[in-house]
Amino acid sequence: MYGLIGKLTAVAEKRDQLIGILLEGIADMPGCLSYVVAKDASDPDAIWITEVWDSKASHDASLALPSVKDAITKGRPLIAGFSNQTVTIPVGGHGLAESKGR
Amino acid sequence: MYGLIGKLTAVAEKRDQLIGILLEGIADMPGCLSYVVAKDASDPDAIWITEVWDSKASHDASLALPSVKDAITKGRPLIAGFSNQTVTIPVGGHGLAESKGR
Repeated sequence: MYGLIGKLTAVAEKRDQLIGILLEGIADMPGCLSYVVAKDASDPDAIWITEVWDSKASHDASLALPSVKDAITKGRPLIAGFSNQTVTIPVGGHGLAESKGR
Repeated sequence: MYGLIGKLTAVAEKRDQLIGILLEGIADMPGCLSYVVAKDASDPDAIWITEVWDSKASHDASLALPSVKDAITKGRPLIAGFSNQTVTIPVGGHGLAESKGR
């Protein structure tokens, strides 16, 4: 498995709009086992994204999906920055969905 | 929903053993929608834990479950430190399991 944890900072007052775009874009991504979008409880502009994929190849391929490309195009103007990026190797747990489409 | 992201550093060469204890301890926690245990891809001692709960109350109550108390007792000597703790408000995504038991 391949995992990512990262923080995305929205342009002021655009966090909710950006979250809406993200949630629309991530439906039905092949090989995606978990993709959680969360507000930071103490930073009003920050969003945390935690991802689990069956492989790095599935993650990389997702960036070419029309829905994801569309979300990136729509979301980019609302993003002030990325930080705290960590690559992980998920080893197990609870809530890892069945992979669809492969 | 209530979320936690945190980094746990294992005592040298004890990461795999600690992960085994964690994975045993987290089965069947009421209100737990996602609980992913992952190795840091670049730090050989680090473990990332990302959690989604239906409420903070469910998280707090899990600490009193016998399986969790047992894991804490067994795991504690293998833990060198905690860091990068973030509280989140998950808003959606993929791979959020149905809550069991409530």
